[in-house]
Amino acid sequence: MEQKVTLEMIQDAREALKGVAELTPMVTSSRLGKNLFIKSENLQKTGSFKIRGAYNKIRQLTPEEASHGVIACSAGNHAQGVALSATKLGIKSVICMPEGAPILKVEATRAYGAEVVLVPGIYDDAAREAERLSKEKGYVFAHPFNDPYVIAGQGTIGLDILDQIPDVDQIIVPIGGGGLISGVAVAVKSMRPNVKVIGVQAATVPSMFVSRRNGEITTVKDGPTIADGIHVLTPGDLTFDIVSKYVDDIVTVTEDEIAAAIVALLEGPKTVAEGAGATTVAAYLFNKVDTSLKTVALVSGGNVDITTLSRIITKGLQKTGRIVQLSTKLVDKAGNLAQLLQVVADNGANVLDIQHEREDAKTEVNSCVVTLTLETRDPAHILKIREDMTKRGYRLLN
Amino acid sequence: MEQKVTLEMIQDAREALKGVAELTPMVTSSRLGKNLFIKSENLQKTGSFKIRGAYNKIRQLTPEEASHGVIACSAGNHAQGVALSATKLGIKSVICMPEGAPILKVEATRAYGAEVVLVPGIYDDAAREAERLSKEKGYVFAHPFNDPYVIAGQGTIGLDILDQIPDVDQIIVPIGGGGLISGVAVAVKSMRPNVKVIGVQAATVPSMFVSRRNGEITTVKDGPTIADGIHVLTPGDLTFDIVSKYVDDIVTVTEDEIAAAIVALLEGPKTVAEGAGATTVAAYLFNKVDTSLKTVALVSGGNVDITTLSRIITKGLQKTGRIVQLSTKLVDKAGNLAQLLQVVADNGANVLDIQHEREDAKTEVNSCVVTLTLETRDPAHILKIREDMTKRGYRLLN
Repeated sequence: MEQKVTLEMIQDAREALKGVAELTPMVTSSRLGKNLFIKSENLQKTGSFKIRGAYNKIRQLTPEEASHGVIACSAGNHAQGVALSATKLGIKSVICMPEGAPILKVEATRAYGAEVVLVPGIYDDAAREAERLSKEKGYVFAHPFNDPYVIAGQGTIGLDILDQIPDVDQIIVPIGGGGLISGVAVAVKSMRPNVKVIGVQAATVPSMFVSRRNGEITTVKDGPTIADGIHVLTPGDLTFDIVSKYVDDIVTVTEDEIAAAIVALLEGPKTVAEGAGATTVAAYLFNKVDTSLKTVALVSGGNVDITTLSRIITKGLQKTGRIVQLSTKLVDKAGNLAQLLQVVADNGANVLDIQHEREDAKTEVNSCVVTLTLETRDPAHILKIREDMTKRGYRLLN
Repeated sequence: MEQKVTLEMIQDAREALKGVAELTPMVTSSRLGKNLFIKSENLQKTGSFKIRGAYNKIRQLTPEEASHGVIACSAGNHAQGVALSATKLGIKSVICMPEGAPILKVEATRAYGAEVVLVPGIYDDAAREAERLSKEKGYVFAHPFNDPYVIAGQGTIGLDILDQIPDVDQIIVPIGGGGLISGVAVAVKSMRPNVKVIGVQAATVPSMFVSRRNGEITTVKDGPTIADGIHVLTPGDLTFDIVSKYVDDIVTVTEDEIAAAIVALLEGPKTVAEGAGATTVAAYLFNKVDTSLKTVALVSGGNVDITTLSRIITKGLQKTGRIVQLSTKLVDKAGNLAQLLQVVADNGANVLDIQHEREDAKTEVNSCVVTLTLETRDPAHILKIREDMTKRGYRLLN
């Protein structure tokens, strides 16, 4: 029974984490809905919940193990969680990362005190190297999710939530490998069996969703997702068992929905979520769960690569009909563009950008393609503008 | 003496604001520096501090005045502050906005219960229309800053800060018209005269800075700034007097510095600041103030137009040497691009984007201009890459 995760282990982890992990705030926003509370683990030390599990694991090492140090493989939040935890406990840490890892994450991991080994190739190569080094040097391998102490550490968030919102009906939790939701589910179901625990996955990488449906651990084929924190193709056995037993339902969200949720979090509670963290809010906003219930959405992290945030914002605004690009052909004559813009103005949309392409393969001499980027209110507003343009004789090319 | 703002007025405002304005959190981040505390008025109701002053003003109306309602002119935070305050007090509000105001701000202001009048033209036209309507209909005009009750309301933030960080040495406050800093300065200097109060303005619109230097109210010529919340060309007389008496120093920050501060706030404390709000953090990060002091930077609001946030992020990353665009000419031959990219890889930079322009006016036949967008660590890293490229025979075009 050594593998089992119990409420006692989670309570014990919570004591140990005092002064290490923060009690992150529960945030609301009228724009997101009255029933929704954001558990802000994006505001946790290192920018994600991972320090909870990593610290709880590393503090259990025997003096002999601790003298060797720990090793992990991660280009993301687990790396920073392990690095800071080990440093706080006075233990050496080594993190293997694929060579192409974002520079900022490499720097942050070093800043938390880890030795970073950049491994040529992709994640799998880095994982193999970590395993090799672990054997060669005797480092203890810190698994990101399939470990009872890691799960118990993450479970402390469940206790936080029950303290902060005692009358919560439903808790939404992202699922990658399943460590976070396993811990939260054990904590919550042990104390308040009637509170629903709902998992969310990216629709492009639905490993736990599919495994649950199949009734057995299943590896899904790889797909692209902006939720890199939950980009896991195979659930763990320990986490699969706990999820099967305790989690009420698993839903999936699309990339567009995740992007829209990131935008909603920036605009409403003015907070930065990474893709994985925003999945729970996406599930709520796009009605994948019962929104009449008093709901906590666990926003698990905020370490979104800032150089890609711009692209995510654009995607999110498009998804919710807040910006649109419309292209039409114009005869290149004085006044024609002004007339087109009048249609836009009459509809109360703002012009963000105008592109005017002449000499394109698509256009005849003397005509040009105009692409307008407009700020709009919602999809109905866009429809109205499209109809008006068509009515006034503009043929839309998209 | 009716115009004077006293500590008692501010304490009185604080009582009245209980249950109306939030006690916003004081946030820290290891990335921003150990001595820096962010007073997060971007997390205030309506997304900025403005509700404090607006509510304190409107609650003072006589029943006769209240029966007519209030009017204001603003395309920004003041509009939302007045709208929500009036609604909470059961009073009608009318907000004049220039026609081109961002749709989201119009919608938000309506959602808070105001009647929005969209006025053709620019801000000045909207202001004239507000004045006209005020006379015609008897609405009470709610000035955004040059009003003792408004100033007293904003001053409640000063009391918050002294409670939250009792051993603060220095408080940095954005200045537009000067209402916010006037209130904070009266509160802080009345209670703790040794705490420094430093104002910040955008270098492109330094109206209070210049007025202080000239010893008289001065109108500066208009300039562009992303800090639209402090885009004010002439200080108020009331605010000028208070600033002259109580504020220790005024510094200015550039647009690039503001952008870099917005990025730092997104990455460090994971929080969204608008340009005006980020000026204080910019002043700290770019050493415009004494950074050895225990400092509170007042982040006054978070209502940044999300459709422009992407551009700000890019500017901010460039300013701090985190991304760079380098262009060079290549003979269009197999392997040449790969060689160039090897130089980049050898230097540990990541390629974010490659543009390959052929048939450009700048290039001869058989050659092309390659523009690399690279993720880099800092300006020194960029210099190293530039030197290496030059050493290996690439002529940089920028």
